Amino acid sequence: MNFDPAVPSPRFRALHIEEFGLAEEEYQHLLSFHHLVRIPKRSFFVKAGDVNTMQGYVNKGCARSYTLDNKGKEHVLFFGFEDWWLGDIESLETGRPGKQYVQAIEDLELLCISARDFNTLCDTIPTLRINRGLKLRRMFYSMIDRLIEVKSCSPQERLDKLLKMRPDIFGRVAMQDIASYLDIEPPSLSRMRRRMLEAERSTT
Amino acid sequence: MNFDPAVPSPRFRALHIEEFGLAEEEYQHLLSFHHLVRIPKRSFFVKAGDVNTMQGYVNKGCARSYTLDNKGKEHVLFFGFEDWWLGDIESLETGRPGKQYVQAIEDLELLCISARDFNTLCDTIPTLRINRGLKLRRMFYSMIDRLIEVKSCSPQERLDKLLKMRPDIFGRVAMQDIASYLDIEPPSLSRMRRRMLEAERSTT
Repeated sequence: MNFDPAVPSPRFRALHIEEFGLAEEEYQHLLSFHHLVRIPKRSFFVKAGDVNTMQGYVNKGCARSYTLDNKGKEHVLFFGFEDWWLGDIESLETGRPGKQYVQAIEDLELLCISARDFNTLCDTIPTLRINRGLKLRRMFYSMIDRLIEVKSCSPQERLDKLLKMRPDIFGRVAMQDIASYLDIEPPSLSRMRRRMLEAERSTT
Repeated sequence: MNFDPAVPSPRFRALHIEEFGLAEEEYQHLLSFHHLVRIPKRSFFVKAGDVNTMQGYVNKGCARSYTLDNKGKEHVLFFGFEDWWLGDIESLETGRPGKQYVQAIEDLELLCISARDFNTLCDTIPTLRINRGLKLRRMFYSMIDRLIEVKSCSPQERLDKLLKMRPDIFGRVAMQDIASYLDIEPPSLSRMRRRMLEAERSTT
Protein backbone atom coordinates (compact mmCIF):
# COMPACT_ATOMS: atom_id res chain seq x y z
CA MET A 1 0.00 0.00 0.00
CA ASN A 2 1.21 3.53 -0.81
CA PHE A 3 0.26 6.39 1.49
CA ASP A 4 -0.19 9.94 0.17
CA PRO A 5 -1.99 13.04 1.44
CA ALA A 6 -5.73 12.72 0.88
CA VAL A 7 -7.11 14.31 -2.30
CA PRO A 8 -10.83 13.75 -1.93
CA SER A 9 -13.26 13.41 -4.82
CA PRO A 10 -15.92 16.19 -5.00
CA ARG A 11 -18.43 13.51 -3.92
CA PHE A 12 -16.56 12.91 -0.63
CA ARG A 13 -16.84 16.57 0.25
CA ALA A 14 -20.52 16.76 -0.77
CA LEU A 15 -21.27 13.61 1.25
CA HIS A 16 -19.89 15.10 4.45
CA ILE A 17 -20.95 18.72 4.07
CA GLU A 18 -24.25 18.56 2.17
CA GLU A 19 -25.54 15.14 3.18
CA PHE A 20 -24.12 14.70 6.69
CA GLY A 21 -24.26 18.42 7.53
CA LEU A 22 -20.69 18.81 8.84
CA ALA A 23 -19.39 22.38 9.18
CA GLU A 24 -16.48 23.29 6.88
CA GLU A 25 -13.95 23.24 9.72
CA GLU A 26 -15.29 19.89 10.99
CA TYR A 27 -14.93 18.46 7.48
CA GLN A 28 -11.37 19.80 7.15
CA HIS A 29 -10.49 18.38 10.57
CA LEU A 30 -11.92 14.99 9.60
CA LEU A 31 -10.14 15.09 6.23
CA SER A 32 -6.79 15.72 7.92
CA PHE A 33 -7.05 12.25 9.50
CA HIS A 34 -7.52 10.58 6.10
CA HIS A 35 -4.77 9.56 3.75
CA LEU A 36 -4.79 8.34 0.19
CA VAL A 37 -4.09 4.65 -0.25
CA ARG A 38 -3.58 3.18 -3.72
CA ILE A 39 -4.19 -0.53 -4.08
CA PRO A 40 -3.30 -2.07 -7.44
CA LYS A 41 -5.74 -4.43 -9.14
CA ARG A 42 -5.71 -7.92 -7.57
CA SER A 43 -4.07 -6.69 -4.33
CA PHE A 44 -5.88 -6.84 -1.01
CA PHE A 45 -7.20 -4.12 1.27
CA VAL A 46 -8.25 -6.66 3.92
CA LYS A 47 -7.60 -10.38 4.35
CA ALA A 48 -9.65 -12.87 6.35
CA GLY A 49 -7.85 -13.72 9.59
CA ASP A 50 -6.25 -10.27 9.87
CA VAL A 51 -7.56 -7.47 12.06
CA ASN A 52 -8.97 -4.67 9.91
CA THR A 53 -7.86 -1.34 11.39
CA MET A 54 -8.77 1.11 8.59
CA GLN A 55 -11.93 1.96 6.74
CA GLY A 56 -11.57 3.09 3.14
CA TYR A 57 -13.82 5.38 1.12
CA VAL A 58 -13.63 4.49 -2.57
CA ASN A 59 -12.45 7.61 -4.41
CA LYS A 60 -11.91 5.58 -7.58
CA GLY A 61 -11.96 1.95 -8.70
CA CYS A 62 -13.81 -1.10 -7.48
CA ALA A 63 -13.37 -4.02 -5.13
CA ARG A 64 -15.01 -7.30 -4.28
CA SER A 65 -15.43 -8.80 -0.83
CA TYR A 66 -15.59 -12.55 -0.53
CA THR A 67 -15.25 -15.46 1.86
CA LEU A 68 -13.76 -18.89 1.32
CA ASP A 69 -15.73 -22.00 2.18
CA ASN A 70 -13.94 -24.96 3.77
CA LYS A 71 -13.16 -26.37 0.33
CA GLY A 72 -11.37 -23.13 -0.58
CA LYS A 73 -14.09 -21.96 -2.97
CA GLU A 74 -14.68 -18.20 -3.16
CA HIS A 75 -18.12 -16.69 -2.51
CA VAL A 76 -18.53 -13.04 -3.49
CA LEU A 77 -20.62 -11.16 -0.91
CA PHE A 78 -20.48 -7.56 -2.15
CA PHE A 79 -18.90 -5.20 -4.63
CA GLY A 80 -17.62 -1.77 -3.64
CA PHE A 81 -17.58 1.03 -6.22
CA GLU A 82 -16.97 4.78 -6.06
CA ASP A 83 -18.59 6.41 -3.01
CA TRP A 84 -18.79 3.17 -1.03
CA TRP A 85 -16.89 2.30 2.11
CA LEU A 86 -14.66 -0.74 2.24
CA GLY A 87 -13.69 -2.77 5.27
CA ASP A 88 -14.74 -5.68 7.44
CA ILE A 89 -16.96 -3.75 9.82
CA GLU A 90 -17.10 -6.40 12.53
CA SER A 91 -13.31 -6.62 12.62
CA LEU A 92 -12.98 -2.80 12.45
CA GLU A 93 -15.27 -2.27 15.38
CA THR A 94 -14.41 -5.22 17.59
CA GLY A 95 -10.68 -5.48 16.85
CA ARG A 96 -11.12 -9.22 16.22
CA PRO A 97 -9.76 -10.96 13.10
CA GLY A 98 -12.10 -10.59 10.13
CA LYS A 99 -13.87 -13.15 7.96
CA GLN A 100 -13.78 -11.34 4.63
CA TYR A 101 -11.25 -10.71 1.91
CA VAL A 102 -11.54 -7.29 0.27
CA GLN A 103 -9.65 -7.26 -3.00
CA ALA A 104 -9.17 -4.61 -5.70
CA ILE A 105 -10.68 -5.70 -9.03
CA GLU A 106 -9.71 -2.37 -10.58
CA ASP A 107 -6.83 -0.15 -9.37
CA LEU A 108 -8.23 1.37 -6.17
CA GLU A 109 -7.80 4.87 -4.83
CA LEU A 110 -9.07 4.95 -1.26
CA LEU A 111 -9.41 7.65 1.36
CA CYS A 112 -8.51 5.79 4.53
CA ILE A 113 -8.94 6.59 8.18
CA SER A 114 -8.08 4.37 11.11
CA ALA A 115 -10.95 3.04 13.20
CA ARG A 116 -9.28 4.53 16.27
CA ASP A 117 -9.11 8.06 14.79
CA PHE A 118 -12.65 7.78 13.48
CA ASN A 119 -13.98 6.73 16.90
CA THR A 120 -12.17 9.62 18.59
CA LEU A 121 -13.59 12.08 16.04
CA CYS A 122 -17.11 10.68 16.58
CA ASP A 123 -16.76 11.56 20.27
CA THR A 124 -15.94 15.19 19.46
CA ILE A 125 -18.12 15.78 16.38
CA PRO A 126 -21.72 14.78 17.25
CA THR A 127 -22.87 15.15 13.60
CA LEU A 128 -20.30 12.55 12.62
CA ARG A 129 -21.48 10.17 15.35
CA ILE A 130 -25.11 10.54 14.30
CA ASN A 131 -24.20 9.92 10.67
CA ARG A 132 -22.14 6.88 11.56
CA GLY A 133 -25.30 5.50 13.15
CA LEU A 134 -27.34 6.34 10.05
CA LYS A 135 -24.74 4.73 7.79
CA LEU A 136 -24.74 1.59 9.89
CA ARG A 137 -28.54 1.49 9.73
CA ARG A 138 -28.55 1.85 5.95
CA MET A 139 -25.97 -0.92 5.65
CA PHE A 140 -28.07 -3.07 7.96
CA TYR A 141 -31.17 -2.54 5.80
CA SER A 142 -29.27 -3.36 2.62
CA MET A 143 -27.92 -6.48 4.34
CA ILE A 144 -31.48 -7.66 5.05
CA ASP A 145 -32.39 -6.89 1.42
CA ARG A 146 -29.40 -8.89 0.24
CA LEU A 147 -30.39 -11.83 2.45
CA ILE A 148 -33.98 -11.68 1.17
CA GLU A 149 -32.66 -11.50 -2.40
CA VAL A 150 -30.30 -14.45 -1.97
CA LYS A 151 -33.01 -16.56 -0.34
CA SER A 152 -36.11 -15.71 -2.29
CA CYS A 153 -35.36 -14.14 -5.69
CA SER A 154 -35.05 -16.08 -8.93
CA PRO A 155 -31.72 -15.90 -10.82
CA GLN A 156 -33.28 -13.48 -13.35
CA GLU A 157 -34.64 -11.26 -10.55
CA ARG A 158 -31.21 -11.21 -8.87
CA LEU A 159 -29.55 -10.23 -12.15
CA ASP A 160 -32.18 -7.52 -12.82
CA LYS A 161 -31.62 -6.04 -9.35
CA LEU A 162 -27.86 -5.93 -9.84
CA LEU A 163 -28.17 -4.34 -13.29
CA LYS A 164 -30.59 -1.75 -11.95
CA MET A 165 -28.10 -0.86 -9.21
CA ARG A 166 -25.01 -1.06 -11.45
CA PRO A 167 -25.85 -0.92 -15.18
CA ASP A 168 -22.08 -0.86 -15.89
CA ILE A 169 -21.29 -4.02 -13.91
CA PHE A 170 -20.42 -6.25 -16.88
CA GLY A 171 -17.96 -3.62 -18.12
CA ARG A 172 -16.11 -3.47 -14.81
CA VAL A 173 -16.38 -6.84 -13.10
CA ALA A 174 -15.38 -10.30 -14.35
CA MET A 175 -18.22 -12.65 -15.32
CA GLN A 176 -17.15 -15.23 -12.71
CA ASP A 177 -17.33 -12.66 -9.87
CA ILE A 178 -20.78 -11.52 -10.96
CA ALA A 179 -21.84 -15.18 -11.18
CA SER A 180 -20.55 -15.84 -7.66
CA TYR A 181 -22.31 -12.72 -6.29
CA LEU A 182 -25.57 -13.84 -7.91
CA ASP A 183 -25.16 -17.56 -7.12
CA ILE A 184 -25.61 -18.42 -10.78
CA GLU A 185 -23.27 -20.78 -12.64
CA PRO A 186 -21.06 -18.74 -15.04
CA PRO A 187 -22.31 -20.53 -18.21
CA SER A 188 -25.96 -19.85 -17.21
CA LEU A 189 -25.14 -16.21 -16.50
CA SER A 190 -23.45 -15.90 -19.92
CA ARG A 191 -26.57 -17.30 -21.58
CA MET A 192 -28.86 -14.96 -19.60
CA ARG A 193 -26.69 -12.00 -20.54
CA ARG A 194 -26.62 -13.01 -24.21
CA ARG A 195 -30.42 -13.34 -24.29
CA MET A 196 -30.81 -9.89 -22.67
CA LEU A 197 -28.43 -8.28 -25.17
CA GLU A 198 -30.23 -9.96 -28.10
CA ALA A 199 -33.59 -8.76 -26.77
CA GLU A 200 -32.18 -5.21 -26.42
CA ARG A 201 -30.82 -5.30 -29.98
CA SER A 202 -34.13 -6.51 -31.42
CA THR A 203 -36.01 -3.59 -29.82
CA THR A 204 -33.59 -0.89 -31.03
CA MET B 1 -53.38 -8.45 20.49
CA ASN B 2 -54.04 -8.16 24.23
CA PHE B 3 -52.32 -5.43 26.24
CA ASP B 4 -51.44 -5.89 29.92
CA PRO B 5 -48.99 -4.23 32.30
CA ALA B 6 -45.47 -5.51 31.66
CA VAL B 7 -44.24 -8.40 33.84
CA PRO B 8 -40.67 -8.82 32.69
CA SER B 9 -38.71 -12.05 32.82
CA PRO B 10 -35.67 -12.00 35.16
CA ARG B 11 -33.54 -12.03 32.00
CA PHE B 12 -35.06 -8.74 30.79
CA ARG B 13 -34.04 -7.05 34.02
CA ALA B 14 -30.55 -8.59 33.97
CA LEU B 15 -30.09 -7.56 30.34
CA HIS B 16 -30.77 -3.91 31.08
CA ILE B 17 -29.15 -3.58 34.50
CA GLU B 18 -26.21 -5.98 34.42
CA GLU B 19 -25.40 -6.07 30.72
CA PHE B 20 -26.40 -2.59 29.54
CA GLY B 21 -25.53 -0.87 32.85
CA LEU B 22 -28.76 1.06 33.36
CA ALA B 23 -29.37 2.49 36.83
CA GLU B 24 -32.36 1.00 38.70
CA GLU B 25 -34.47 4.13 38.23
CA GLU B 26 -33.59 4.30 34.52
CA TYR B 27 -34.64 0.67 34.14
CA GLN B 28 -37.93 1.28 35.98
CA HIS B 29 -38.59 4.34 33.84
CA LEU B 30 -37.90 2.35 30.66
CA LEU B 31 -40.05 -0.53 31.90
CA SER B 32 -43.00 1.80 32.51
CA PHE B 33 -43.15 2.41 28.73
CA HIS B 34 -43.41 -1.32 28.00
CA HIS B 35 -46.59 -3.34 27.98
CA LEU B 36 -47.24 -7.04 27.77
CA VAL B 37 -48.61 -8.25 24.45
CA ARG B 38 -49.83 -11.82 24.04
CA ILE B 39 -49.92 -13.18 20.52
CA PRO B 40 -51.47 -16.61 20.07
CA LYS B 41 -49.73 -19.22 17.95
CA ARG B 42 -50.15 -18.57 14.20
CA SER B 43 -51.13 -14.90 14.72
CA PHE B 44 -48.95 -12.07 13.46
CA PHE B 45 -46.89 -9.46 15.29
CA VAL B 46 -45.95 -7.72 12.01
CA LYS B 47 -47.17 -8.10 8.43
CA ALA B 48 -45.33 -7.13 5.26
CA GLY B 49 -46.81 -3.94 3.82
CA ASP B 50 -47.73 -2.56 7.25
CA VAL B 51 -45.70 -0.02 9.16
CA ASN B 52 -44.13 -1.63 12.22
CA THR B 53 -44.46 0.77 15.15
CA MET B 54 -43.51 -1.46 18.12
CA GLN B 55 -40.50 -3.57 18.99
CA GLY B 56 -41.14 -6.66 21.09
CA TYR B 57 -38.80 -8.41 23.52
CA VAL B 58 -39.63 -12.13 23.67
CA ASN B 59 -40.47 -12.92 27.28
CA LYS B 60 -41.76 -16.34 26.28
CA GLY B 61 -42.49 -18.32 23.12
CA CYS B 62 -41.07 -18.21 19.63
CA ALA B 63 -41.69 -16.61 16.27
CA ARG B 64 -40.54 -16.85 12.70
CA SER B 65 -39.93 -14.00 10.30
CA TYR B 66 -40.38 -14.64 6.62
CA THR B 67 -40.89 -13.01 3.24
CA LEU B 68 -43.01 -14.09 0.29
CA ASP B 69 -41.51 -14.36 -3.17
CA ASN B 70 -43.56 -13.27 -6.17
CA LYS B 71 -45.02 -16.76 -6.51
CA GLY B 72 -46.32 -16.54 -2.94
CA LYS B 73 -43.77 -19.02 -1.53
CA GLU B 74 -42.58 -18.36 2.04
CA HIS B 75 -38.86 -17.96 2.84
CA VAL B 76 -37.98 -18.09 6.54
CA LEU B 77 -35.28 -15.52 7.37
CA PHE B 78 -34.97 -15.81 11.17
CA PHE B 79 -36.43 -17.34 14.27
CA GLY B 80 -36.98 -15.36 17.46
CA PHE B 81 -36.84 -17.11 20.82
CA GLU B 82 -36.78 -15.95 24.44
CA ASP B 83 -34.50 -12.93 24.98
CA TRP B 84 -34.60 -11.87 21.31
CA TRP B 85 -36.20 -8.73 19.89
CA LEU B 86 -38.90 -8.98 17.26
CA GLY B 87 -39.80 -6.41 14.65
CA ASP B 88 -39.01 -5.22 11.15
CA ILE B 89 -36.19 -2.85 12.08
CA GLU B 90 -36.15 -0.94 8.82
CA SER B 91 -39.87 -0.27 9.07
CA LEU B 92 -39.58 0.56 12.80
CA GLU B 93 -36.85 3.11 12.24
CA THR B 94 -37.90 4.65 8.95
CA GLY B 95 -41.68 4.53 9.37
CA ARG B 96 -41.98 2.93 5.92
CA PRO B 97 -44.02 -0.24 5.25
CA GLY B 98 -42.05 -3.38 6.12
CA LYS B 99 -41.06 -6.37 4.00
CA GLN B 100 -41.28 -9.10 6.63
CA TYR B 101 -43.99 -11.13 8.30
CA VAL B 102 -43.33 -11.91 11.96
CA GLN B 103 -45.61 -14.71 13.10
CA ALA B 104 -45.97 -16.57 16.41
CA ILE B 105 -45.10 -20.26 16.05
CA GLU B 106 -45.68 -20.77 19.79
CA ASP B 107 -47.94 -18.58 21.94
CA LEU B 108 -45.91 -15.41 22.36
CA GLU B 109 -45.54 -13.20 25.40
CA LEU B 110 -43.83 -9.98 24.36
CA LEU B 111 -42.69 -6.87 26.19
CA CYS B 112 -43.48 -4.16 23.70
CA ILE B 113 -42.45 -0.55 23.45
CA SER B 114 -43.29 1.87 20.65
CA ALA B 115 -40.45 3.06 18.43
CA ARG B 116 -41.43 6.63 19.26
CA ASP B 117 -41.18 6.10 23.05
CA PHE B 118 -37.93 4.18 22.66
CA ASN B 119 -36.38 6.96 20.57
CA THR B 120 -37.42 9.59 23.12
CA LEU B 121 -35.96 7.50 25.95
CA CYS B 122 -32.68 7.08 24.01
CA ASP B 123 -32.39 10.88 23.90
CA THR B 124 -32.68 11.14 27.68
CA ILE B 125 -30.84 7.97 28.80
CA PRO B 126 -27.39 7.94 27.12
CA THR B 127 -26.67 4.37 28.29
CA LEU B 128 -29.76 3.23 26.41
CA ARG B 129 -28.68 5.06 23.26
CA ILE B 130 -25.20 3.52 23.41
CA ASN B 131 -26.66 0.06 23.93
CA ARG B 132 -29.08 0.51 21.06
CA GLY B 133 -26.02 1.16 18.90
CA LEU B 134 -24.30 -1.95 20.28
CA LYS B 135 -27.42 -4.06 19.69
CA LEU B 136 -27.66 -2.82 16.12
CA ARG B 137 -23.99 -3.64 15.57
CA ARG B 138 -24.43 -7.17 16.92
CA MET B 139 -27.45 -7.68 14.70
CA PHE B 140 -25.46 -6.39 11.75
CA TYR B 141 -22.62 -8.83 12.45
CA SER B 142 -25.03 -11.74 12.75
CA MET B 143 -26.67 -10.64 9.50
CA ILE B 144 -23.31 -10.84 7.71
CA ASP B 145 -22.76 -14.27 9.29
CA ARG B 146 -26.17 -15.38 8.09
CA LEU B 147 -25.43 -14.16 4.56
CA ILE B 148 -22.06 -15.95 4.57
CA GLU B 149 -23.78 -19.09 5.86
CA VAL B 150 -26.53 -18.99 3.23
CA LYS B 151 -24.03 -18.41 0.42
CA SER B 152 -21.11 -20.60 1.38
CA CYS B 153 -22.02 -23.34 3.88
CA SER B 154 -23.10 -26.84 2.91
CA PRO B 155 -26.57 -28.04 4.02
CA GLN B 156 -24.96 -30.13 6.80
CA GLU B 157 -22.88 -27.15 8.01
CA ARG B 158 -26.00 -24.96 8.06
CA LEU B 159 -27.88 -27.56 10.08
CA ASP B 160 -24.95 -28.00 12.49
CA LYS B 161 -24.78 -24.23 13.06
CA LEU B 162 -28.48 -24.03 13.79
CA LEU B 163 -28.37 -26.99 16.18
CA LYS B 164 -25.39 -25.50 17.98
CA MET B 165 -27.30 -22.24 18.44
CA ARG B 166 -30.65 -23.91 19.24
CA PRO B 167 -30.29 -27.57 20.25
CA ASP B 168 -34.04 -27.59 21.00
CA ILE B 169 -35.10 -26.33 17.57
CA PHE B 170 -36.73 -29.57 16.36
CA GLY B 171 -38.83 -29.69 19.52
CA ARG B 172 -40.18 -26.16 19.01
CA VAL B 173 -40.29 -25.41 15.31
CA ALA B 174 -42.02 -27.27 12.46
CA MET B 175 -39.77 -29.24 10.10
CA GLN B 176 -40.91 -27.20 7.09
CA ASP B 177 -39.93 -23.90 8.76
CA ILE B 178 -36.50 -25.25 9.68
CA ALA B 179 -36.13 -26.53 6.11
CA SER B 180 -37.05 -23.11 4.72
CA TYR B 181 -34.62 -21.34 7.09
CA LEU B 182 -31.84 -23.70 6.03
CA ASP B 183 -32.77 -23.78 2.31
CA ILE B 184 -32.97 -27.57 2.41
CA GLU B 185 -35.90 -29.52 0.94
CA PRO B 186 -38.01 -30.95 3.83
CA PRO B 187 -37.52 -34.63 2.79
CA SER B 188 -33.71 -34.12 2.69
CA LEU B 189 -33.79 -32.43 6.09
CA SER B 190 -35.83 -35.33 7.51
CA ARG B 191 -33.24 -37.79 6.22
CA MET B 192 -30.34 -35.72 7.62
CA ARG B 193 -32.07 -35.52 10.98
CA ARG B 194 -32.79 -39.28 11.01
CA ARG B 195 -29.16 -40.07 10.21
CA MET B 196 -27.97 -37.76 13.01
CA LEU B 197 -30.36 -39.35 15.53
CA GLU B 198 -29.26 -42.86 14.46
CA ALA B 199 -25.59 -41.87 14.81
CA GLU B 200 -26.32 -40.44 18.28
CA ARG B 201 -28.13 -43.65 19.32
CA SER B 202 -25.31 -45.87 18.11
CA THR B 203 -22.74 -43.99 20.22
CA THR B 204 -24.80 -44.05 23.47
